Amino acid sequence: MSSVESLKEQIAQLGDKIRQLKLEKADKETVTREVAVLTQLKSQLAQLTGEPLPTAGGSGSGKKSGGGKKAAAQFTLKTPKGTRDFNDKEMAVRDEMFATIKGVFQQHGGVTIDTPVFELKEILSGKYGEDSKLIYDLEDQGGEKCSLRYDLTVPFSRFLAMNSSQYPNIKRYHIGKVYRRDQPAMTKGRMREFFQCDFDIAGTHEPMVPDAEIVRIAVDVLTALDVGDFMIKINHRQVLDGMFQVCGVPADKIRPISSAVDKMDKSPWEEVRREMVEDKGLDPAVADRIGTYICLSGGEDLLAKLQQDADLMANPSATAGLKDMALFFRYAKVFKMQDKVLFDLSLARGLDYYTGVIYEAILVDSEENQKLLAQDMAGQSKAPGQEDESQARLGSIAAGGRYDELVGMFAGTSKKGKSNNIPCVGVSVGVERVFSILMRKRKLEEIKANRTEVYIISVGDGLLEERMAIAAELWDHGIKAEYMFKAKPKLPAQWAVCDRDLIPLSVIIGRDELEKGVVKIKDMINKTDSQSGGNEVPYVNMVAEIKKRLGQA
Amino acid sequence: MSSVESLKEQIAQLGDKIRQLKLEKADKETVTREVAVLTQLKSQLAQLTGEPLPTAGGSGSGKKSGGGKKAAAQFTLKTPKGTRDFNDKEMAVRDEMFATIKGVFQQHGGVTIDTPVFELKEILSGKYGEDSKLIYDLEDQGGEKCSLRYDLTVPFSRFLAMNSSQYPNIKRYHIGKVYRRDQPAMTKGRMREFFQCDFDIAGTHEPMVPDAEIVRIAVDVLTALDVGDFMIKINHRQVLDGMFQVCGVPADKIRPISSAVDKMDKSPWEEVRREMVEDKGLDPAVADRIGTYICLSGGEDLLAKLQQDADLMANPSATAGLKDMALFFRYAKVFKMQDKVLFDLSLARGLDYYTGVIYEAILVDSEENQKLLAQDMAGQSKAPGQEDESQARLGSIAAGGRYDELVGMFAGTSKKGKSNNIPCVGVSVGVERVFSILMRKRKLEEIKANRTEVYIISVGDGLLEERMAIAAELWDHGIKAEYMFKAKPKLPAQWAVCDRDLIPLSVIIGRDELEKGVVKIKDMINKTDSQSGGNEVPYVNMVAEIKKRLGQA
Repeated sequence: MSSVESLKEQIAQLGDKIRQLKLEKADKETVTREVAVLTQLKSQLAQLTGEPLPTAGGSGSGKKSGGGKKAAAQFTLKTPKGTRDFNDKEMAVRDEMFATIKGVFQQHGGVTIDTPVFELKEILSGKYGEDSKLIYDLEDQGGEKCSLRYDLTVPFSRFLAMNSSQYPNIKRYHIGKVYRRDQPAMTKGRMREFFQCDFDIAGTHEPMVPDAEIVRIAVDVLTALDVGDFMIKINHRQVLDGMFQVCGVPADKIRPISSAVDKMDKSPWEEVRREMVEDKGLDPAVADRIGTYICLSGGEDLLAKLQQDADLMANPSATAGLKDMALFFRYAKVFKMQDKVLFDLSLARGLDYYTGVIYEAILVDSEENQKLLAQDMAGQSKAPGQEDESQARLGSIAAGGRYDELVGMFAGTSKKGKSNNIPCVGVSVGVERVFSILMRKRKLEEIKANRTEVYIISVGDGLLEERMAIAAELWDHGIKAEYMFKAKPKLPAQWAVCDRDLIPLSVIIGRDELEKGVVKIKDMINKTDSQSGGNEVPYVNMVAEIKKRLGQA
Repeated sequence: MSSVESLKEQIAQLGDKIRQLKLEKADKETVTREVAVLTQLKSQLAQLTGEPLPTAGGSGSGKKSGGGKKAAAQFTLKTPKGTRDFNDKEMAVRDEMFATIKGVFQQHGGVTIDTPVFELKEILSGKYGEDSKLIYDLEDQGGEKCSLRYDLTVPFSRFLAMNSSQYPNIKRYHIGKVYRRDQPAMTKGRMREFFQCDFDIAGTHEPMVPDAEIVRIAVDVLTALDVGDFMIKINHRQVLDGMFQVCGVPADKIRPISSAVDKMDKSPWEEVRREMVEDKGLDPAVADRIGTYICLSGGEDLLAKLQQDADLMANPSATAGLKDMALFFRYAKVFKMQDKVLFDLSLARGLDYYTGVIYEAILVDSEENQKLLAQDMAGQSKAPGQEDESQARLGSIAAGGRYDELVGMFAGTSKKGKSNNIPCVGVSVGVERVFSILMRKRKLEEIKANRTEVYIISVGDGLLEERMAIAAELWDHGIKAEYMFKAKPKLPAQWAVCDRDLIPLSVIIGRDELEKGVVKIKDMINKTDSQSGGNEVPYVNMVAEIKKRLGQA
């Protein structure tokens, strides 16, 4: 549904339908609803193509739906490239998603902190390797040089370095926006402004225990979000480095070769081997030896196999890494997640700061995911050399690892020369991808964006002040209530609001009710009350009756 | 407590105390706690003085507490000027505060949207008058010119203009950070990055009904936050403009004279009059006539008085404004908030985009507020000409007004030339100020930053994997549980975590319990269980017993 062609088709059809409805003088509610859907589709299209909306607020005409032309205006009415708005229904789904994630984080003892959206530029420098070019800088307006944060990990490490005596250990989560000046690709969920949901355990602890718990947290979050089947691929930087040494990779080529291996999830082995040999000047025999290792993946069986590999076991780095991995598998069983983790020697991860275990959660092939994959490939941008990228990271929805030296890079600046380093391990959930999946599972009209419990309706006369007074009475008792801001609203218009906003109860008044000192209360979902418009209740009992109906009594 | 001198004094004393504790070999827990407080104080001091922390992570020594010297390091370890971190306890209080505000917003039918943290620069241009110089720009890294948002109102208006057919009316709230390159003043809660909590009602509605509800929302928020006595000063741009016309202010001087009047809350009338006459060239007789009006404030009595003012009633702008004000007071009574609102002719508000009713909520003199005032004045920065500023805005904790033309400024760009303007009225709650008040009311050690319900403790043997297995069992049943990441933790260390983190229950195991197939469950708050360390429960009943104790059964 989200490919450019399919969207254009839908927009054209809906434009025709709306013109038809208008010709037939269909009721306003119906037209408004269809126009809303059209606006939504156009907005999706504009985001996909990266082009501005055809006209500002000019939707509903059904014309010029291609979105290809600039509005003839003083300026373009849009959000910056790679950013987007989220409307009320989308925010309702996002809020639910964040609440679910926060719930899991708190289940594991997490506390949250907040750091500024921008940091001193020098704090971010030298942390992201060649991706540093994607950092957004603030203009130097006579002061400090600042940059928008690129992730939540570096600011957390800076926070720890500044507060190491207060927080020698902490389980902290942080749900916040980060910024990357990347080429946006909506279909891949790659934006310039996006949310990360991070959980990190800092402190010197029993080996691999926090690491195992971090992976369990990833498992719990993905299970709670109900996004489909997933697996967590796991590897260890020391195993990887040891393996490279054993294969004969020269010390200065270990990082570049590791980068090449990192592409194994999107390129065939032949291509990765070509990069190693031709681009990076590796001895073909060494490359082939690497090839025999990185095709390996499995569970404890793989661990056992590697532990019997005499070459590897003679390498101190590999031995240390495999010892960690053995502990990890032991704890994975204690945490009942052994069927969710997969030891994968081809997993390398790009970031330089990882020092131990690394992992990446991927969605595994299910019918649903296959469908998403097909949609995403259809909608992918055709920048040369990028086609395979979209397919590659598609399934990755959480990633992380151990970074034992990052805090030390900041803490090392202590005047006393004493290192205040704190080892850390963490995971980051890629929620934009998750959000897309969750939105596709929901029907727009079934998402209740508001929390309103009661709509106050007048019959016959307008009774504006009487409706306002009832609203005030309900607010005073903690009941979420609304009424129409109109002196003499029509009855069908008031019913329509209840339907559109999925409001469960209405309080109905007319002259008769006021004279008798009663109101009518009507169940707007099940419509169980009498046809005449609800059950009569004395005004003095209104609050109690509503609370009873809402299950709050 | 927050003045620089008082902080330095506290830091010096606490430094001495910590050295004494260390000499006396006090238990580690006590020292850590005191050091944490010291770090906190130093951080406050650094923020107040705008200078970096003396050393990175070097707190605890009690030395060099003045914070005046740069660390001899590659770079300064701090957050950018005018920004700050919030630690776990502060975030717990902030989250409560936001939840309270969100609760009120939802009670009035609010839905939320999200917009990017930065906008195209041209979207923000020409919206903030001379404060536009405070806008943060992003560096032009080859693309669009962008700026960090200055408030939430302009992005909301841009959103409405882009989606006018889908949202001809909406009640939207938005809790988000905004950015102003202002001189920071922590004591006044004036930062460069800070949160705003906005509620706005957009759409063409019955006159003054949404305006009255917005003020009622402000009343409900401030009441729910329990920050002390407050009043809402209210005025109307049309009344103000009419009054200026009646007094004889030339048309081109109305905005500058309005700015002068806006200073009435921080300067005496003589100073405001001097500015009007000497700086802005107003006829002294005109200034004096203005003086007779702007000293007026009151309730419906003032309204009645103005309605009998023949000069004003002959002015169309004043007449229209007073008609609105009459409606407002009528609805204020319906909403039972007439004792909270005050018609104040000296309220002018700086922003250009207001077109109707304007208001500002202030804390009124209570003993507590007087104390805060004294503290804030003691801590104020001494920049010349700014002394009175701190006193002035001190009490202002929410503000807003009607802006009927702002959406039109964007919607006016429609290709079809048709205006998609949407009139709006809104309020913004200044939560940083509220947060300071809430923090001062709380004791740090009584703030529970985590949500952990159960701590799993071993007695005698370490039983690490057994504790991990119990944690997994509790997580599987939705119970928030932690254990110490240590192979053989000491019992007192485990108790100490429960105390520090205010964890209500513990599950205790030892070899005996494991052999018998039981656990002990202990109430850690009331310590009602037997001294021996909790009540024995068969393992199979553990989850049910814990849920019962937590009131979830």
